[in-house]
Amino acid sequence: MITRQELEQVHQRILPHIHRTPVLTSHLINEISGSDLYFKCENFQRMGAFKMRGAANAILNLSKDKQRKGVVTHSSGNFAQAISLAAKSLGVPAYIVMPSSAPEVKKAAVRTYGGKITECPPNLKDREDTAKKIMEETGATFLHPSNDLDVIYGQGTAAIELLEEQPELEYIITPVGGGGLLAGTALAIKHFGIKCKSIGAEPFEADDAYRSLKNGKIETNTSTNTIADGLKTQLGDKNFPLIQELVQEIIRVEESEIKQAMKLIWERMKIIVEPSSAVALAAVLREKEKFKGKKTGIIISGGNVDLRNLPF
Amino acid sequence: MITRQELEQVHQRILPHIHRTPVLTSHLINEISGSDLYFKCENFQRMGAFKMRGAANAILNLSKDKQRKGVVTHSSGNFAQAISLAAKSLGVPAYIVMPSSAPEVKKAAVRTYGGKITECPPNLKDREDTAKKIMEETGATFLHPSNDLDVIYGQGTAAIELLEEQPELEYIITPVGGGGLLAGTALAIKHFGIKCKSIGAEPFEADDAYRSLKNGKIETNTSTNTIADGLKTQLGDKNFPLIQELVQEIIRVEESEIKQAMKLIWERMKIIVEPSSAVALAAVLREKEKFKGKKTGIIISGGNVDLRNLPF
Repeated sequence: MITRQELEQVHQRILPHIHRTPVLTSHLINEISGSDLYFKCENFQRMGAFKMRGAANAILNLSKDKQRKGVVTHSSGNFAQAISLAAKSLGVPAYIVMPSSAPEVKKAAVRTYGGKITECPPNLKDREDTAKKIMEETGATFLHPSNDLDVIYGQGTAAIELLEEQPELEYIITPVGGGGLLAGTALAIKHFGIKCKSIGAEPFEADDAYRSLKNGKIETNTSTNTIADGLKTQLGDKNFPLIQELVQEIIRVEESEIKQAMKLIWERMKIIVEPSSAVALAAVLREKEKFKGKKTGIIISGGNVDLRNLPF
Repeated sequence: MITRQELEQVHQRILPHIHRTPVLTSHLINEISGSDLYFKCENFQRMGAFKMRGAANAILNLSKDKQRKGVVTHSSGNFAQAISLAAKSLGVPAYIVMPSSAPEVKKAAVRTYGGKITECPPNLKDREDTAKKIMEETGATFLHPSNDLDVIYGQGTAAIELLEEQPELEYIITPVGGGGLLAGTALAIKHFGIKCKSIGAEPFEADDAYRSLKNGKIETNTSTNTIADGLKTQLGDKNFPLIQELVQEIIRVEESEIKQAMKLIWERMKIIVEPSSAVALAAVLREKEKFKGKKTGIIISGGNVDLRNLPF
C-alpha cells in the first residue's frame, strides 16, 4: 500500500497542474442537517471535477517516451475532459474514444481542451476495440478513469487538502461510481486523518458498491436508472480491495433525496454541482442521527451539468 | 465625508453578522477577457446578496430604543430579506411592506428570515402609505435600500475586503441600481485603494445612472425592460453626490451581453449569480481594450434567482 510520504509526493507533483479548491460551509445546511459540514469544492477544479487530479498524476507518472506517444481513454464524461486538459497542459497527445451518441456539448468540451476524438458505435465492445486500435497505431498508453492506481492516488489529494484545513474531521463522504475517488479518499484518510472515517454514498438505483462490500466481490448494476449519471459504473480490481479494507460503510439514497440535496446546495450555497455530487449530502440528510453534531467533510465531486436540463 | 477610520469601524461592527465572502478567479474567463479578474462573491453572503452588509450596519446604528421599536422597509427584493435576517439576528422586529403581486417565493424567503409582511396594492404610493402607517403605529424606523448613508457604508465593506486581499487592483466594477453599492464601493476605494478606480455597470435598458452622471442631475428610467431586475431603481440624493465625486465612469451593456456573461459565470465558475451580478463582467467583455492586462475587481452582488426561470 502507498505510504504517506508517497501520497504527499503525488500531491506535490500535481499541484502545478490543479487548483487548490476552496472548502465552503453553510450555516443553513448545518442547521437543517444538525451536522457540521465542510464542502470541498471540486466543482471549482479545472475542467469542473476532481478527475483532473487523477488524470494529471497518471500522465505525469508516464516515462517521457510514453508521454510523447500520448494517452488514450474511452469516456463520454468528466474523465475525457480531464485527460484532454491534463495532457494539453503537459504537451502530451490525448486520444478520446467517444460513442457517436455522446451529446455534442460533451464532444465540444473535449475538443476545447485539445482532445482528439475518435467516434465509435455506442457499446463497450466497440469502445474497447477502437481504443485498442489507437494504442496499436500510436503507441499511446491506455488510462482507466477509476481502476488505475495512479488515478486513484491523484483523486485522493482532494481529501489531503480538506484534512489539512479541517484535521478534526470525523467523516469524509464521497460519491462512489467507479470507485477511484472513494479508494483515493480512503487512502488519504488513512494517512492524513486523525480520527476520520471514510464513507461512500451511492444511489439505490446503482448500488453495486454497497452490494460488492456486502458480498465480498465486485458486483455489477443490472439497471442504472439514476439522475447521478457519474455513478453508473462499477468498481474494479485495483480499487475494490482498498475500499474493502479502508471504507467503513456505503450509504444508499433515493432519487428524490438526491434531487432535494442538489436543490439545497444550488439554492443555499449558490454553487453549481452535478447530481452525483449531491449524493454525499443526501446521505447525511438521510442518516441524520449518525452525523449529528459531527464534523463531516463532503467531496463535491464536480459541477458539469446541462443548464437547459435541470431536475427542478 | 466618512473617514477611513470610520469606515473601518463600520466593517468591524458588522463583521459578527456577515460572512467574509471568498474572492474567486477563473483562468478561462481571464483568457477570454484578456484581463486579470477577481470576483468578490457576495452571492455567498448571508441571504445571498451584499445587501446584508448595509442592512446590518443600518440596524446596528440605531439606538437601543429605536431597535426595540423595529424597522420597516418596502421592497420585494433582496433588501427585504436582508432587513429581515439582520433584524432577526439582532432581536429587532422587521416590518416588510410588499406588493400583493410579489412572487410567493419572495414572500416565503422574507417569512423564513422572520420578517413581518404587510401586503399592499402594487404601486409606489400605496407602498409608501402602508410603510408610513406602520411607522405611526409601531414607532419603527424606515430604512431605504440604497439612499441611506449607513446602508451605503455597509455596502462598501465588500470592497474593503476585496482590496485587503488584492491591494493592487486598478478597477473595481459594481452593478448600479439604486446606487448604494456603487457609492459605498467608491468610498471604500477612496480610502483603501492604492491606484484603484471605481466603475459602475448598468443595462442600456435602465441607464439612469449613466444619464445622471452625464447631465449632472438624478435621472429616472422611463422603461426598465431588463433581465437585471435588481437594477431598475434610480439614484438618490444621498448616494448621487458620492457617485458624482468618486466614480470614474458608468459602462452600459446590452441585454444579450448580460445573458452571455451570466452563462459564462455559471458554466465556467460553477457559481450561481443573479443577472444583475453579471452586468459587471459584461462591462469588462464589452470594453476589452480598457481592461486588457489590468487587475480588475468585480463585485458579484448576489445569487438569488428563480431556478425554474433561467434565461438560457
